Amino acid sequence: MTENTTKADWIAVDWGTSNMRAWAMSASGTVLAEARSDKGVGQLARDQFEPALLTVVGDWIAGPTTVVACGMVGARQGWVEAPYAAVPCATLPGGLAQAVTQDAALSVFVIPGIKQVGPADVMRGEETQISGFLSRNPGWDGVICLPGTHTKWVHISADEVVSFQTFMTGELFSAISEQTVLRHAIATDGWDNDAFLAGLDTALARPERIASRLFSLRAEGLLHGLSGVSARAQLSGLLIGAELAGSKPYWLGQQIAVIGNNNLSKIYVDALATQGAPATQVNSTSVTLAGLTAAYQRLKG
Amino acid sequence: MTENTTKADWIAVDWGTSNMRAWAMSASGTVLAEARSDKGVGQLARDQFEPALLTVVGDWIAGPTTVVACGMVGARQGWVEAPYAAVPCATLPGGLAQAVTQDAALSVFVIPGIKQVGPADVMRGEETQISGFLSRNPGWDGVICLPGTHTKWVHISADEVVSFQTFMTGELFSAISEQTVLRHAIATDGWDNDAFLAGLDTALARPERIASRLFSLRAEGLLHGLSGVSARAQLSGLLIGAELAGSKPYWLGQQIAVIGNNNLSKIYVDALATQGAPATQVNSTSVTLAGLTAAYQRLKG
Repeated sequence: MTENTTKADWIAVDWGTSNMRAWAMSASGTVLAEARSDKGVGQLARDQFEPALLTVVGDWIAGPTTVVACGMVGARQGWVEAPYAAVPCATLPGGLAQAVTQDAALSVFVIPGIKQVGPADVMRGEETQISGFLSRNPGWDGVICLPGTHTKWVHISADEVVSFQTFMTGELFSAISEQTVLRHAIATDGWDNDAFLAGLDTALARPERIASRLFSLRAEGLLHGLSGVSARAQLSGLLIGAELAGSKPYWLGQQIAVIGNNNLSKIYVDALATQGAPATQVNSTSVTLAGLTAAYQRLKG
Repeated sequence: MTENTTKADWIAVDWGTSNMRAWAMSASGTVLAEARSDKGVGQLARDQFEPALLTVVGDWIAGPTTVVACGMVGARQGWVEAPYAAVPCATLPGGLAQAVTQDAALSVFVIPGIKQVGPADVMRGEETQISGFLSRNPGWDGVICLPGTHTKWVHISADEVVSFQTFMTGELFSAISEQTVLRHAIATDGWDNDAFLAGLDTALARPERIASRLFSLRAEGLLHGLSGVSARAQLSGLLIGAELAGSKPYWLGQQIAVIGNNNLSKIYVDALATQGAPATQVNSTSVTLAGLTAAYQRLKG
């Protein structure tokens, strides 16, 4: 017989559009247990958040428990809207939003996202990772890159978010490689680093050529037998090259941290290195937890 | 009682990936009747082409009949592969490919596409439109733009295709506006010309900014109430601006013809006009028929 004896002093939650991760935490910030769910914000109506949470963390609860959450759970279509703070601002700006719960023992707080009025931009979740990173690196100034579906470039100075910019590079890669004629030309996995670097160079040197290079990937396959793996890496190079060209005012001459522990983050670090821009890679789970812990401690402090 | 008394001297067919158009023609090249089908090449196995054709044109046939077709029907996955001619070449290069038919009275010929070895590129169908345009404008030199899902820019000199380049602009517009987070921000129709021109200017002046402008369309909607119609027109401006930036070596200082009778073609003409590049708009059905007729006449000549 298996019995779950973990009881949380508080619970940390990272709740995004497509999935949710939760951690049972000790008062001092140690992880006691971890759980996941595919009940992302995108598929939940407002009254479905509490049951979805309890399914995952119910076993950890004994008595009144505080939950601190970040991510799209604080969007207008989430559990409770946590209005954006506007840059320039601290990474844990203002107060947390409290969600309404049926279970009176449960106190759920959501960390607000950050917005930029012009050029218009928004983030939800990344502010918590940045906050965690800064809590571990006090006084750090520079630029943080958070690769993903919507990659963010964030300028940090004097413990504040000065400005930021989002690139839809990950989502463009998926849409182009799966939803256009290039789906016939592009493998679903595999990597060819030379092809990646060729795409990167083209896009960085001549960003106006990107649009014409895309169909070439198809034609190269038809006429010259370009492999699906090479086409995949070259498309990635073209799109990340376009992003690095557009984000150059952010990273040029700056101290750079790339938050992310997956292959994609490694690719960004390597791509920046080709431009003479060394970047430090940082574990994203670790800084997410540090950020949620910082928010919990301020709440209780 | 209705009786279809149209009998064709020959039949012209434009058979693309998603649909087919056929015309009953007189020997002298007059259109006697027209019909359409949604049985595009993309959904037909090789032995399904003849039945699909006869469903549409069977009533026009009395005795031995020649069919001249262009488009993806000549691709490897079409009815019969009509191997590409390589640039530089005439727009009606080499011989037509003959398809195998069950009905001995039916002689089906397919016009070959054109390829470019480097940068790799291919066309099927557009060569026939260009051929029709040139048959009506003998000695014309300049650049032909054929807007669509895959827009082509084609350099014509001395009655030959010198080079060409394909931009996936139409398909990118669909994939980005329907398959990414921007689907929440972009209306399915409507137009805002000022927003289009703003996107066009951004992409032409600073093509490296395109990738960052895409997510801004979403954020502008969330923060500043940018309308779906304006976001739609701005996205179109960004993508067409990127295409004009990339195709500038083609159109700059050249005589330009835009083949197409839809709104999209008018948008290209207007966009080129903002760059001091006047273009003539040409009816695409008319030049398709002229090209098919030229191929028929050469076959019979």
